[in-house]
Amino acid sequence: MNNVSYRLPKTKTGQKTFDKIIRAGKKLFAGNGFQATSINDIIAKARVAAGTFYIYFDNKLALYLYLLDLYRTSIRKASSNAIVGLSSRQAMEREGLKAFIMFVKEDPLAYKLIWESLFVDFTIFKEYYMQFADSYMYHLKKFVDNGEVRNDIDIETVSYVLMGISNFVGLQILFRDKVTEQEIDFVVDEAMKILAAGLFLKVSK
Amino acid sequence: MNNVSYRLPKTKTGQKTFDKIIRAGKKLFAGNGFQATSINDIIAKARVAAGTFYIYFDNKLALYLYLLDLYRTSIRKASSNAIVGLSSRQAMEREGLKAFIMFVKEDPLAYKLIWESLFVDFTIFKEYYMQFADSYMYHLKKFVDNGEVRNDIDIETVSYVLMGISNFVGLQILFRDKVTEQEIDFVVDEAMKILAAGLFLKVSK
Repeated sequence: MNNVSYRLPKTKTGQKTFDKIIRAGKKLFAGNGFQATSINDIIAKARVAAGTFYIYFDNKLALYLYLLDLYRTSIRKASSNAIVGLSSRQAMEREGLKAFIMFVKEDPLAYKLIWESLFVDFTIFKEYYMQFADSYMYHLKKFVDNGEVRNDIDIETVSYVLMGISNFVGLQILFRDKVTEQEIDFVVDEAMKILAAGLFLKVSK
Repeated sequence: MNNVSYRLPKTKTGQKTFDKIIRAGKKLFAGNGFQATSINDIIAKARVAAGTFYIYFDNKLALYLYLLDLYRTSIRKASSNAIVGLSSRQAMEREGLKAFIMFVKEDPLAYKLIWESLFVDFTIFKEYYMQFADSYMYHLKKFVDNGEVRNDIDIETVSYVLMGISNFVGLQILFRDKVTEQEIDFVVDEAMKILAAGLFLKVSK
């Protein structure tokens, strides 16, 4: 499944063409789904010459996997930017949750493209979330060790609970027609109340 | 969107045909997605005469909405069966979470069919979860009033947090190749530890 590959552009013109394909693919996969989108659809929407697609991507799956990876990287980057300078895990969790919500609010196609993997190939979907869970566990472990996070709860379950909260509180926000940053802060703080009492231990600072 | 409708069969033979269409639709929508599935595909897979489809369903969307409704009802039924005789909200939440996980473990197509609504029509997806959230809020409200659930957290956010936990702890289980009921109980209990301390107040019984 991961044998398919892509080739990054080497020139400015190439980059432009590459970006057009990326944008077209993102919209079509998220709009009509992976199965119902053909390479011809992508070429037509991107307005690139037939055959150009294959300069960069082996096939449709290669483009999809590239996009999924782009989301994975962008979401992680949004989180890690948001927690720069923080030392308490509870504060990191709050800012990470807010960053995720701001990200999907800005780019609601994220849900579609990521959950689309459930249809593209269950293995891709599974690996996407298992990798997130692994990374969560790795980062939480340190705070279990230093006494900030309860040590009597299975850390894998904690990771899935936290991913579930992010994803569904994200939906709660996305379901509103208009939402201000203040309203996002409110919802984030409400969700954090459960975690403050349920997951975190008080740490003297 | 909800103007499309279906007609239930009136005879035993009709019921058989209807069931065949339901099974075929479920597999095809979950396997290839709504967009990539045609009524002809469904008729072919169900092995029913061409035209029979329209006796029961106005169109493809009517069948999809029927199936989504079937899942909604079945998931609610599984939960409500699981909490018969319980009076504490914390115990209900535990059994409801376990019932949801047992349900999706038995029928993993549930995720696909429900999340597929994100692609069929965002309004359908939104209504599906908003209705669940409304029902959650309605039921939680009573236990906020009687002091079992914290009254200082926005109840809408609580509902999305709980739905997020169910869905993602459900995935955690689904990602395992083999899983025993004992392992499900373990994961459910671990998740409940967060809620026991984070959401519920001790109530004398």
